[in-house]
Amino acid sequence: MVTVNENYLKLQAGYLFPEIGRRKREFAAKNPDAGIISLGIGDVTQPLAPAVIEAMHRAVDEMADKKTFHGYDDGGVGYEFLRQAIKENDYTARGVDIETDEIFVSDGAKTDIANMQEIFGLDNIVAVTDPVYPVYVDTNVMAGRTGASAGTAGRSTYGKIIYMPCSAENDFVPGPPSQDVDLIYLCFPNNPTGAVAIAGELKKWVEYAKKHKAVIFFDAAYEAYISDADIPHSIYEIEGAKDVAVEFRSFSKTAGFTGVRCAFAVVPRRLKAYTRDGKAVELNPLWRRRHCTNFNGVSYISQRGAEAVYSAGGKRQIRGTIDFYMNNAKLIRETLSSFGYTVYGGVNAPYIWLKTPDGIGSWEFFDLLLTNAHVVGTPGAGFGPAGEGYFRLTAFGGTDDVKEALQRIKAVS
Amino acid sequence: MVTVNENYLKLQAGYLFPEIGRRKREFAAKNPDAGIISLGIGDVTQPLAPAVIEAMHRAVDEMADKKTFHGYDDGGVGYEFLRQAIKENDYTARGVDIETDEIFVSDGAKTDIANMQEIFGLDNIVAVTDPVYPVYVDTNVMAGRTGASAGTAGRSTYGKIIYMPCSAENDFVPGPPSQDVDLIYLCFPNNPTGAVAIAGELKKWVEYAKKHKAVIFFDAAYEAYISDADIPHSIYEIEGAKDVAVEFRSFSKTAGFTGVRCAFAVVPRRLKAYTRDGKAVELNPLWRRRHCTNFNGVSYISQRGAEAVYSAGGKRQIRGTIDFYMNNAKLIRETLSSFGYTVYGGVNAPYIWLKTPDGIGSWEFFDLLLTNAHVVGTPGAGFGPAGEGYFRLTAFGGTDDVKEALQRIKAVS
Repeated sequence: MVTVNENYLKLQAGYLFPEIGRRKREFAAKNPDAGIISLGIGDVTQPLAPAVIEAMHRAVDEMADKKTFHGYDDGGVGYEFLRQAIKENDYTARGVDIETDEIFVSDGAKTDIANMQEIFGLDNIVAVTDPVYPVYVDTNVMAGRTGASAGTAGRSTYGKIIYMPCSAENDFVPGPPSQDVDLIYLCFPNNPTGAVAIAGELKKWVEYAKKHKAVIFFDAAYEAYISDADIPHSIYEIEGAKDVAVEFRSFSKTAGFTGVRCAFAVVPRRLKAYTRDGKAVELNPLWRRRHCTNFNGVSYISQRGAEAVYSAGGKRQIRGTIDFYMNNAKLIRETLSSFGYTVYGGVNAPYIWLKTPDGIGSWEFFDLLLTNAHVVGTPGAGFGPAGEGYFRLTAFGGTDDVKEALQRIKAVS
Repeated sequence: MVTVNENYLKLQAGYLFPEIGRRKREFAAKNPDAGIISLGIGDVTQPLAPAVIEAMHRAVDEMADKKTFHGYDDGGVGYEFLRQAIKENDYTARGVDIETDEIFVSDGAKTDIANMQEIFGLDNIVAVTDPVYPVYVDTNVMAGRTGASAGTAGRSTYGKIIYMPCSAENDFVPGPPSQDVDLIYLCFPNNPTGAVAIAGELKKWVEYAKKHKAVIFFDAAYEAYISDADIPHSIYEIEGAKDVAVEFRSFSKTAGFTGVRCAFAVVPRRLKAYTRDGKAVELNPLWRRRHCTNFNGVSYISQRGAEAVYSAGGKRQIRGTIDFYMNNAKLIRETLSSFGYTVYGGVNAPYIWLKTPDGIGSWEFFDLLLTNAHVVGTPGAGFGPAGEGYFRLTAFGGTDDVKEALQRIKAVS
C-alpha cells in the first residue's frame, strides 16, 4: 500500500497567498465592478528594462539558428557568463570574494530556499523570525523537521520550530536565541516587515552560528532596495560568514523577473555541516549534487536577460524602476502616517508594515479593506503569530493605483 | 550542531552525465584537435520551430509594456492558455479526459519526477526498471527510501529498491514483480533502451497497481517519437490508469525546449495514496501544495513558446524536426547493424541501445570510443547493472556528425 508523506497533513490551511487570492476572487465574483487594487502579493508591475528586452530578443533569435542554438545549460548550474557577471557586480564590487563555482543559478529564490533544507538532516532545530515568509516554515513542515501545528488556521505555529518574535521593541531585528539552534532563516531587507539589519547585528548572528555550528540561510532577495549606505547587501560582507551562511538572491524584485524566472544561491566552499558522529561535510558539492540531479537549469533566454541587468544600460534602467517603487513606498508610508497609522519599513525595502487600527485582527483588517475599500493587502498574522495586529502593503503597484488605494483607505479609516 | 542529510553520503560517484562530461573535457583538454562528436547526452541540436520563435518574440515584447507585462504566473501551476492547449491536444485528441486542474506546468520533467516522490512516505518500496534513468533512483536515495549502495561506482545498486531487469529476453519491457511494491517508475518510450510498451503491457501494470494499491510514475517524455499507431502515448489511454498513475511530459524532446524549459505533470483527481492507518488521501491537492510552496511557475515567454507548439504551424514544424532525428536513428540503427552490432530501439524512440562488441564493459567501450573514435556515447552500466554490456547512442546530432561518427566507429570496430 502506497503511503503519503504524512507531514503534509500537518500543514494548516492553504499557503498564504493562494488563500488571499481565493478571498479576492470570491469578492470580485460577487462585486465585478469593485475595481479591486492589490497591494497584497509582492509582485512587480513595471515592464522589464529595455536592455533586458533587447538581450532576450537576441537570445530568442539565437535559438532559431542551429549554429547559435542552446540546449541544456551544461550541469544546470547556470552559464559562466551569468555567474561571472554575478560574481563581479554583486560580490567583487562590494569587496566580497565569491567564486563562480560557489554560485548556482536557478529559476527562483523561493525554489532555492524551499529546496536547500533537503541537504540537511531532519534532526536539525530550525529557527525563524516571527513574522516570517511562510515558505521557510512550510517546507520544513513538509520535510518532517517540525511537530504538529498549534493555533488556528492562518495563525498557526509548529512544534520544534524556534520562533523569534520581531516587534517594534527590537526594531523587527531579533538577536540570536539563548538555546542551540541549527538552521537559521534570516531575511534582510525583511519580507514582510521591511526591516534591515546593520552589520553589527549580522555579526552577532555569524558569531552565534560559528559558536553553535549552525548554518544561516540568508535571504537577500530585496537587497537592491537598500538605500542607506551602511546596510550590508550580502551577509558575506561580514567577516567569517562564508563559514556559516548560504545566501539567496533573485532577479525577481531587482529587475522585475517574477514572470521571467531567474535567481541564484551562493554556497561557499568553506561552508560545512556535520554527520551525526561529528565529521565535517562540505555543503557545496552536496548542493551541486542535489541541484544537478533535480534540476536542468534556467531558460537560456532568461539567463541572457539576467546578464543584461548588469550592463551599464540595464543598471541605470533597473535603478529607475526601483526608484519608482520606492517613491510609492514613501507615498504609502507618509500618507498612512498622516492618517494616523503607525507605519514601519518602506525605506530600504519595498514593504510597508503597519499596525492595524484599534487593535483589530489582521485577517479582519484584510476583510475590512477588501470589502469597504476594495484594496487587497496581506494580513500580518499570515506570516506568524507575532504578525497579528499588523498588515503588509507593498510598493509594487502603479502610482495612480497607490494613490487611489490610499484615498480609499482614508475613506474607511 | 547542524547535521547533513546523511542519505546523500550513500550516493555513488557523480551523476552519470556530469561524469561523462568530466571524461570528455579531460580528453578534449589533452586532445584539442580531436573534434569530438557527442552522441551521448540526450540533448537536441536543431533550432526551435519558427512558430515558437515568433511566439517568444511576441511574449518578450509583451514584457516591455506595462499594459501587457506578466509577473508571477498566479499559483505557479501554469497559465490556463497552456494547460488548455495541453488538455485538448495531448489528451482530448487521444480520447483521454484530463481536466486543466489536473495539469501542473513546470520547468522540466526531470524536476517533476525528482520532486514528485516528496509527497509520498519514506516507507514505500520503490521499483525501477534496470537499466533506468538515474534520477529515479538517486532522488530516492537522497530522500532516504533506500539502503546503502552495493557494487562499484557507475554500476551500483541500492538496498530496498526493487530492480526489474530489462533485456532482449523480455523485449526490454518487464512485467509487474511478484512481490508488493508501492512506487513504480516506468518510462515508455524508454530512456535508455528505446523500448516501447503496447497497451496490453501497460494494462498489466495498471491492474497490478490497483490490486496492490501502488502508484505508477509514468515518464512519457519521449511520446512524440512514437511512430507505430498502436503504441499508447499516455498511460491514461489504459482504462483505470487515472486511479493509479502520475504522468510526466516535457517539451524538451518534443519541441527542442532543453534550453527553454517547459514541461508538465498530470496528477489526476482520482489518484490517492494512504496514511499508515489506511485512510485515503487525494494526491492532487498534496502536489498542488508542494508545487505552489516550492515553485513560482515557468517563464511566461517559455509558456507562450510551448503554447505555439500546438499551433498548426508549430505542429508541422516540430514534426519535421522529429522526423529529422528519427532519420538519424534509422541511419544509426541500420549502419551499426551492417557493421555487425546488435542494435535495439531507434524506431519509436530517439535512443539506440546496442550490445558492446566482444562482451566488453560499458565504461571500457565508452573510453575506447572516446579515445579511438572521438565519439561520446553513454555507458549502459551507468543506467544500472542490467545495462552492463550495452551502450546508448542518441539520434539528436546533426546528420553530418552522425555519419562521421558512424564512419569513425566503423574504423575502430
